[in-house]
Amino acid sequence: MARSTSGESLLSRVVRIYEVFGPDLRAITLSELARRSDLPLATASRLVNELIEYGWLRRDSKRRICVGVRMWELTSRAAPTLGLQEAAMPFMVDLHAAVGHHVQLGVLQDSEVLYIGRLSAPRAVHNRARVGARLPLHATSGGLVLLAHSSVACQEMVLARPLVALTRLTVTDPAVLRSTLSEIRQTEVAYCPGYVDECATGIAVPVCAAGGRVVAALSILVPHEPAARSLIPAVRAAGRGISRILGGDSPRVGRIV
Amino acid sequence: MARSTSGESLLSRVVRIYEVFGPDLRAITLSELARRSDLPLATASRLVNELIEYGWLRRDSKRRICVGVRMWELTSRAAPTLGLQEAAMPFMVDLHAAVGHHVQLGVLQDSEVLYIGRLSAPRAVHNRARVGARLPLHATSGGLVLLAHSSVACQEMVLARPLVALTRLTVTDPAVLRSTLSEIRQTEVAYCPGYVDECATGIAVPVCAAGGRVVAALSILVPHEPAARSLIPAVRAAGRGISRILGGDSPRVGRIV
Repeated sequence: MARSTSGESLLSRVVRIYEVFGPDLRAITLSELARRSDLPLATASRLVNELIEYGWLRRDSKRRICVGVRMWELTSRAAPTLGLQEAAMPFMVDLHAAVGHHVQLGVLQDSEVLYIGRLSAPRAVHNRARVGARLPLHATSGGLVLLAHSSVACQEMVLARPLVALTRLTVTDPAVLRSTLSEIRQTEVAYCPGYVDECATGIAVPVCAAGGRVVAALSILVPHEPAARSLIPAVRAAGRGISRILGGDSPRVGRIV
Repeated sequence: MARSTSGESLLSRVVRIYEVFGPDLRAITLSELARRSDLPLATASRLVNELIEYGWLRRDSKRRICVGVRMWELTSRAAPTLGLQEAAMPFMVDLHAAVGHHVQLGVLQDSEVLYIGRLSAPRAVHNRARVGARLPLHATSGGLVLLAHSSVACQEMVLARPLVALTRLTVTDPAVLRSTLSEIRQTEVAYCPGYVDECATGIAVPVCAAGGRVVAALSILVPHEPAARSLIPAVRAAGRGISRILGGDSPRVGRIV
């Protein structure tokens, strides 16, 4: 592997360039990109120019650097989550038509919930979850479903670290969370009023592949009001529908913390 | 830039690795990946191992190599098309509830239509368009809308090259296509019965950003029957809704072939 004098590989520098971009930073000047990725300007410039040549980066009308459509295309057409998204979409659309607001699909990634799909509506309740963004496992309905069905190692790691409260209703007590996880495994639903935003309630169910392996969480985010409970059966039915398409049964419950 | 003895850059070899993956090839053995990307096995192995380290590639349960979720995450959260997708989704969901079958969003990429979003239904009409996949501009309703509003250079290039017929109804005569493009610019809709599949009709309208710049095509794919025409107003209204959110007016028509 080609390495700079510091012993760092060229590829690791490319990775650092991409790590700079995010949902709130989609375009950046070359000098700022070099600064944030901690690369000499000349190195950043050389790498950026070559990446632009391949369509992996592009310049916008203000000459700021953005992720290229070609790179999005390469990753999305072979995305590891594509089968899951395709199986889920028809059920998500029906669920969205029934409950409105937000319907979302999340997967476990590096001890966080990564949202891979979302349907919303113009006047829907406020929602921090966005496609490609992550939220803490313990603070979201989808995250709690994924955590409840993750390995003991993952659960212990998450419960051992400081648990941030996104609102005053977010549960951050590890003992309470343990019993919440156990309840989620039994009831197959996570009901989270006000955890992420005090005005919103999240409701999530597991999505299973063959053998009951939980591969995603299907969730809705609706206004925080007691009537939200009545939506649980609709979410549950949609989750089971997606699991059926994926060849999945009920979740395998064998890893209780 | 680090180069091999052949003078080829390391980055170009990484790009070649990713070019191997596609909608129909999401997992591959290392030796097959090396063969298809025309790289020595040792080089491919070294690159793949480093890319796995960064989460840009991963191994599945059969040790085959796949695109990593981390790479999807990096590109999707900063995707150049994300603002467009977010603006379009609520209108696509409503349109889908009204017409069923398929609602899709495509952009112009390298003289083809690249689909960046799609809503479908379990028993919808057969559809070749998939998220991350491309189809020829002249053979699809979305593609014709994009072509009608593309540069003269793009139009001339597309019309000069051999035009493939996907069905016996696909229009491949450049003279007929020229008048079709002119009609699309005037009516602001492309109506394509049986062009991609004889059993399906595509209907597309432009999506405009500020200044009337056409940035995408919104299309539906429904069964091929005369009643499909009655869906044009619904597609048109949804396209205008998305354009309004993007700050766009009617398409700018100044580049007529």
